[in-house]
Formats: sequence, C-alpha cells, structure tokens
Amino acid sequence: MNRKAIRELPYKIILEEHELPKNWYNMRADMPGKVAPLLDPETMEPVTTEALQKVFCTETAAQEMDEENRLIPIPEDVRHFYKMYRPSPLIHAEYLEKLLDTPAKIFYKFEGNNTSGSHKLNSAIAQAYYAKQQGLKGVTTETGAGQWGTALAMACAFYGLDCRVFMVKCSYEQKPFRREVMRTYGAEVIPSPSDTTMVGRKILREYPGTPGSLGCAVSEAVEAAMQQEKYRYVLGSVLNQVVLHQSIIGLETKAALEKYGITPDVIIGCAGGGSNLGGLIAPFAGEMLRGEKSYRLIAVEPDACPSLTRGKFVYDYCDTGRICPLAKMYTLGNGFMPSAIHSGGLRYHGMNPIVSQLYADQILEAVAVSQKEVFQAATTFARVEGILPAPESSHAICIAIREALRCKRENRAETIVFGLTGTGYFDMLSYGKYNAGHLADAPLSAQDLEKSFHTLPEKFR
Amino acid sequence: MNRKAIRELPYKIILEEHELPKNWYNMRADMPGKVAPLLDPETMEPVTTEALQKVFCTETAAQEMDEENRLIPIPEDVRHFYKMYRPSPLIHAEYLEKLLDTPAKIFYKFEGNNTSGSHKLNSAIAQAYYAKQQGLKGVTTETGAGQWGTALAMACAFYGLDCRVFMVKCSYEQKPFRREVMRTYGAEVIPSPSDTTMVGRKILREYPGTPGSLGCAVSEAVEAAMQQEKYRYVLGSVLNQVVLHQSIIGLETKAALEKYGITPDVIIGCAGGGSNLGGLIAPFAGEMLRGEKSYRLIAVEPDACPSLTRGKFVYDYCDTGRICPLAKMYTLGNGFMPSAIHSGGLRYHGMNPIVSQLYADQILEAVAVSQKEVFQAATTFARVEGILPAPESSHAICIAIREALRCKRENRAETIVFGLTGTGYFDMLSYGKYNAGHLADAPLSAQDLEKSFHTLPEKFR
Repeated sequence: MNRKAIRELPYKIILEEHELPKNWYNMRADMPGKVAPLLDPETMEPVTTEALQKVFCTETAAQEMDEENRLIPIPEDVRHFYKMYRPSPLIHAEYLEKLLDTPAKIFYKFEGNNTSGSHKLNSAIAQAYYAKQQGLKGVTTETGAGQWGTALAMACAFYGLDCRVFMVKCSYEQKPFRREVMRTYGAEVIPSPSDTTMVGRKILREYPGTPGSLGCAVSEAVEAAMQQEKYRYVLGSVLNQVVLHQSIIGLETKAALEKYGITPDVIIGCAGGGSNLGGLIAPFAGEMLRGEKSYRLIAVEPDACPSLTRGKFVYDYCDTGRICPLAKMYTLGNGFMPSAIHSGGLRYHGMNPIVSQLYADQILEAVAVSQKEVFQAATTFARVEGILPAPESSHAICIAIREALRCKRENRAETIVFGLTGTGYFDMLSYGKYNAGHLADAPLSAQDLEKSFHTLPEKFR
Repeated sequence: MNRKAIRELPYKIILEEHELPKNWYNMRADMPGKVAPLLDPETMEPVTTEALQKVFCTETAAQEMDEENRLIPIPEDVRHFYKMYRPSPLIHAEYLEKLLDTPAKIFYKFEGNNTSGSHKLNSAIAQAYYAKQQGLKGVTTETGAGQWGTALAMACAFYGLDCRVFMVKCSYEQKPFRREVMRTYGAEVIPSPSDTTMVGRKILREYPGTPGSLGCAVSEAVEAAMQQEKYRYVLGSVLNQVVLHQSIIGLETKAALEKYGITPDVIIGCAGGGSNLGGLIAPFAGEMLRGEKSYRLIAVEPDACPSLTRGKFVYDYCDTGRICPLAKMYTLGNGFMPSAIHSGGLRYHGMNPIVSQLYADQILEAVAVSQKEVFQAATTFARVEGILPAPESSHAICIAIREALRCKRENRAETIVFGLTGTGYFDMLSYGKYNAGHLADAPLSAQDLEKSFHTLPEKFR
C-alpha cells in the first residue's frame, strides 16, 4: 500500500453514521456448495423453518434458513440503535507497529466500545427487535463469560422485553459483577443447572454439585422458552443468523479500508462459536467466493478448545443436552469439557456451519494458540495501544503479532487487519493470575480429544 | 434551538481528529479577581514555583501557577496520544428525552471510552509526558476508586516511566480487579497506609487496622516522591493544572455544539475534586467571565460530601497528613471522613480553587443529591441510553433528569448538556446493593459537619 497515504490516515477511521451499512451480508448466497442444513434431533431429517420457529423468533428462523438472499435489510430501528455505538472505529495500530519494528501495517476493528463490552450487541439488538415485532413477551438464553447475556439484557431493556438468562453456575459465582450488570438492565439471572427446568433438575440429580456447562445452560434455556407462552430462545453465536448480523463488522471494516484505498492482505479473528470471525471476514470471504479477490483469512482458537484445527467436520448436536438441532460443523464432540482456560467465550465444542464450510473449502486458515502466549500478547498490546483486551480477542492479537514479525523477517509491507472483539474489564481474575505468574498452559491432550469424540452422535463419529 | 436542525444531527457528534483542540484553556487568565495562591504549609506564605517544582514536575508546577496565559499549547505528542480515544463523542440523548417526554434537548459528553474508564487519562498522559520530558525515572500518586491510578498506569506504561500507586487500603481489598488493571499496565500498587513511608508507619502505629483514606494516601505518595531521586508526585484532581488539562472536555463540547449551531442553556457536571467539572465548564465559564454569554453552570455533589453547598470557603490543607500546600477552597475540613457512599471519586474534603472561586462569584451553581436518587438515575439512563454510568457520573445524570422534568413542567425547550465522566464496570458491588434494595442514603449530619470543621487550620476556621 501507499506509504504516503498511510501518513494522512487518521489514527482511528470512524465512518460517519450515514455510512453505516443498510444491509447485512449473507455469505451463503455466494457459496458454491450450500451449507449443510440443520437436522431435527428427533427425525434426523433436515429441519423445516416451521419447526425452527417454535424455538426461535419467526424472522430469525427464516434468516437461519435463508441461502438465497445476499443482502438482508437492517431494520431502520436496529440501524438507529446501532448508532449508539457504531460505526465502530478501525484503528491504525501505529504504536504496536513501532514496538514490533515491522514494515507491516496493522489495523484493528474495535467492537468493545459499548456496555456489553463486545460485538455481541450487534446480534442481541437484532434478535430483540424481531422478538418485539412478533409480539413476544420475553426471551431466554444462556451465557458463559457473560458478554452475550449482558448484550441481550441491554437489548431487552431497550425494547421492554423480559429476559431470562441461564448463567453457567461457576461463572455465576465467580463473576458476580457480570451478573449485576445484567440485573441492572432488568434481566433475571439464574445459575445453571437450576431446578427451574426438567433438564436442569435431571442434571442436578445425576451430578450434584456440578459447576454447570454452556451445553447444559443451552438446554435449560431452550426448555424454558418452549414451556412459556410468547417466549422464544435466542442465541449469541454458532447460528447462521448470528453470523449474518455480525457481518456489520466486516462491512464497516471493508468500507473504512476502501475509504482510504487500503487493501488488506491478512484478516484475523478469534474463533469460539464463530460469530465474530464469521462477521469480520464475511465480505472478504464473499469476494473470494465470487473469485474477485484473494486474502489470507485466519481463525485463531485456543489450543485447549481447538474445534477447527483438531475437530471433525461432521453432524453434531449444538448442545450437551441433545435437545437442539444438529449442525454439520467442526466439532470436538457435544460432550467436550474444555479445561479451565480463561477465555470463556471460546470454550464451545463446535463451530458455526458457514465458518466450518469455509474452512473445509480452504477459504479460511486456522491456528491454535496457547493461553500464555495469548496473555503475553494481550499485555503487550494493552501497554502500547491503551485498550485492555478481552482474553478472547487477544487470540487475534497474538496471531497479528506473529504475522507482523513474519513480515519483518521477510521484509514485506503487508497490511494486517484483526478484530478486537471486546474489553477485558471483567477478566481481571485471569490477568491477575498471569501477572502473578500462575497461569498455566493447558492444551487439549490426544486422550481427552479421543474421549470427547465418543460423545459425537454414533452415526457421525 | 432549531428543531429541524436537531433532526439532522447525528446521534453522536464526533469531531474529526484534526478538529481536536490544539491548546488547553486556562480560565484564570479571564478571571477578574485572581485565584488565591497556594500557601506553603511551613511558612503559610504563598508558595513559589521553585518550591512546587520539588514536588511536582517542572512544567506542571509552572502551569499550576500560571494566571496569565489563556491558551497553553497541548504538546504534539500528547495530542497524538489523545487521538487514541478523542475527540470523545457528544451524544444526543434522544432515548432519554423520549422516556422523560420532555421538550428539552439533552446532550452528554462521554469520557468513558478508554481503558481508564474516565476523563482521568486526559491529565494523566499530560503529566506523564512532562515527567518523561524532564528525564524523570518515575512518578508516585494515590488512588481511591482507582480510575486515576489506572489512567496514570496507562500513561506511564506508554512512556516507560515507573509508576507507584498508593491505593487506599479498603479499596485495595474491595477492588482487586482495579488493582490488577494497574498491574497489567506495569504499575506497583501499594495498599495505604503502608510501612514504606514514615507517615504511613506513623498512621499504622496510631491507628492499627485502619482502612486508610485518600488524605493519608496523598501524604504517603508525596513523601515517597520526595525520598527518591528523579521521582515526582502527580495528582488526578483538585489542582489547577489538572483543570487546565481537562479543559479539553469543554473545548470539544463547545466545538461540537457550535458545529451544529446549538447553544446550551444548562451545563451540568459532577464534582469531587473539581477536575471534570472545571474542564467541562471551562470555555463556557470563560465566555461568562468575559461578559460575552450567559449559561447556567451546575455542579452536582453527593449530600454525603457536600463541599460546595455546605463547606467553608477558606484556606485548608489538601491532604490529611498536612504535608501538602494549603489552598483556598470550599472545604469540609481536611480531617473530614465521608460516610461510605459508593462514589469513591467524589469523597474528597475540598474543591479545586478555580471552581471554588467561580462558585463564590456566582458563575457556578451547586446542588447536592442523595445516593439513592443517583442510582435510580443511573439505572434509568443505562436502560435507555445503553451506557452503564459510573456512580460519580450519575450525579450529573440525576440533575440533568431533574432539569429536563422542570423544562417539561414549564414547557421550555431548553438545551441541557451534561458530562458523563465514566463507566461503572468496576462499581457493580454498589449496583448490586442498589438492585437488592440495600443501598441507604447517608447525608452528612450537622454534627459531623461541625466536628469536621474543627480539623480546619486554626486561623481559618
């Protein structure tokens, strides 16, 4: 890219509000082979939109199934809400470049400037809007680290919807402040497993004293939504509708880069369920799918939960309780129990089906990194760029730094863009352990992986 | 103001980076009666710049004394750092207006979009810059709620300066996460009172088990700076140099309003030591001082620590240990111990001398509010405007709401601007108490006030 042009760049590229995208972008419309459909857990046949609409909101269920429409209009009301915190800044990491002494140019799209602290609000407000439009009374969901629960609580407060959040019990106890943020926004927060659902009571009977898991909390939230009239279940990642809503991240990133005539070479995102990554890479992957351009797109996952790099691309249940549909995705097995790594948002056994397909089709690369390298990158970044990143987001920083150092070795002035999905204010327990030198690496062992694959549905193992 | 114009306003007015002010504004140059000078605690004579420079950085000590220069250039390096998070947005609170059903227009200047979570970084980076320029090795300071300590830790990490923070012991224990943020930025955090200073050891001997106080932490930080070569003491509020640096808030606010042809009627800020308030009102007060315009400027303080509304305008020590200079200010007495209200940043016994003089000269109004009304306002605001405000900042929200409701009663379309100084992510213990209905009001009693006045220097009582 033009070095002179870079000089004239602002430190933060912030699009104007009227430049906020008017449509979400649906990658599936450009994918040559379609994404494998969800399967009904009872019949093992492809689910119908009607069946999905019993669990999800009518409109988002339709979005979940939509493989035809490239552009889905963002409702004006949602777009107006987005203006509270969007367009989000694309920041030129010039202090990090200087520290690394690299010829690479580094930019990051920062999604943490809102109270949920992450990109999660992008989909939460859309899902709450559709729930309100449909005349629902409330929604249920689960949350692990708490960013999704917070985002949904904010969105529901805005639309006057009830919001019931099943929070993984160990997080509920370890993160009382996250819990209180949700309560401040009027949400009901229930530690999971709870005695408020059948599946919760069953798990409590079988495993008294269990700290809970995300898979179990999903099962409880779905059951709670189906038991109550005018309630639906909403989800913060994994689903295609969520990747659709999150495409706003990539669309803004692309528009901001184009405004200054910058073409990225490498685009990097952290990957848990795939919502942020899928959203960030969407328009770039679209160009690759249409054969227009070529980029290196890189997913970064923890080596403790390496669904892309070590999982199988097969049909698996989205939840541990096996009451949700099955998706064809890279998965470690629905019974996978990740070790206690400090990136709660990346501890999911599977990966969004679109992202999975892009990886299978080699549009997307993936790499797994260790916890300690991630915190080292996070601390380095915080000290020069000011922002205290969430551990999840720091997976992307870690690989951005590696790529920038590669550019230095190879003396190449590539342009690296990464997604900084959120802030780490509620992760100081982990930072504290790192600061005290007590943070250990915990890569997934071959035995544990093999054991976990046994939880895959028998016919897909 | 023009209703049509408002329609065309963006939701957030964000100045462009090149519109970032090039100078800070020094109100003292426009004040007809000058601000009373600081007194040397040993001689009770006005301090000299030379004496101040033993404690403070050379350049900031000069700024502390400067009554002549209206505009002080912002060093280019500091201005570049500001671009990490500035210009900060001026947000049109249209959802709050709608909720209150008021003809008033409400805007707020949001300073929380940086890792320190508040406006404190504006002065921290300036003070760290001057320390670095001077060739210092490090700085010391104190922190209560932790926002200032975090901001200074960030600034010192950026310039490679040592940073030693004396954190009030009860906060150190109650806010372990704040502590870890500072450590992540490389700061040394010491619970105060500590055995690392003479004054700390003395207090520990006299009051074993004391939870500490801000006044004591100030004394320790000053002593620590003076004991070590190439160290100086820096402070996050109360001083005139800090109000000078914080004038960036008001200057941006004014520029943003003028860009859209908006003239404010009422400008509201929360007041602890006066740094945010002084900075926000600076250019508006300047116009009033020069007789050019008229506004209602309102300081909002907690009724548990009402230095402006119930204090005396006399000379008092800036610290409890009585080793710092005396300032003529509204004060409750340097030995004042506020009850345990949840706005740690507003629990200071005195008020910045410039702000004090403006209040004495009736340029500024002041009002004290109760803790419960503050949290009620905070929660209302969070649910419609999305941002979770710090309890300190919520004092301003509280009066903005009252003023908007007054406009409704009087059917007046006034324009209200308030400063939203920071976010409440580290205040969830207090929000939790409020959510659970356990938050009590604790206005300062007449007896406690009288008792505290006895700690004023004898000749000024």
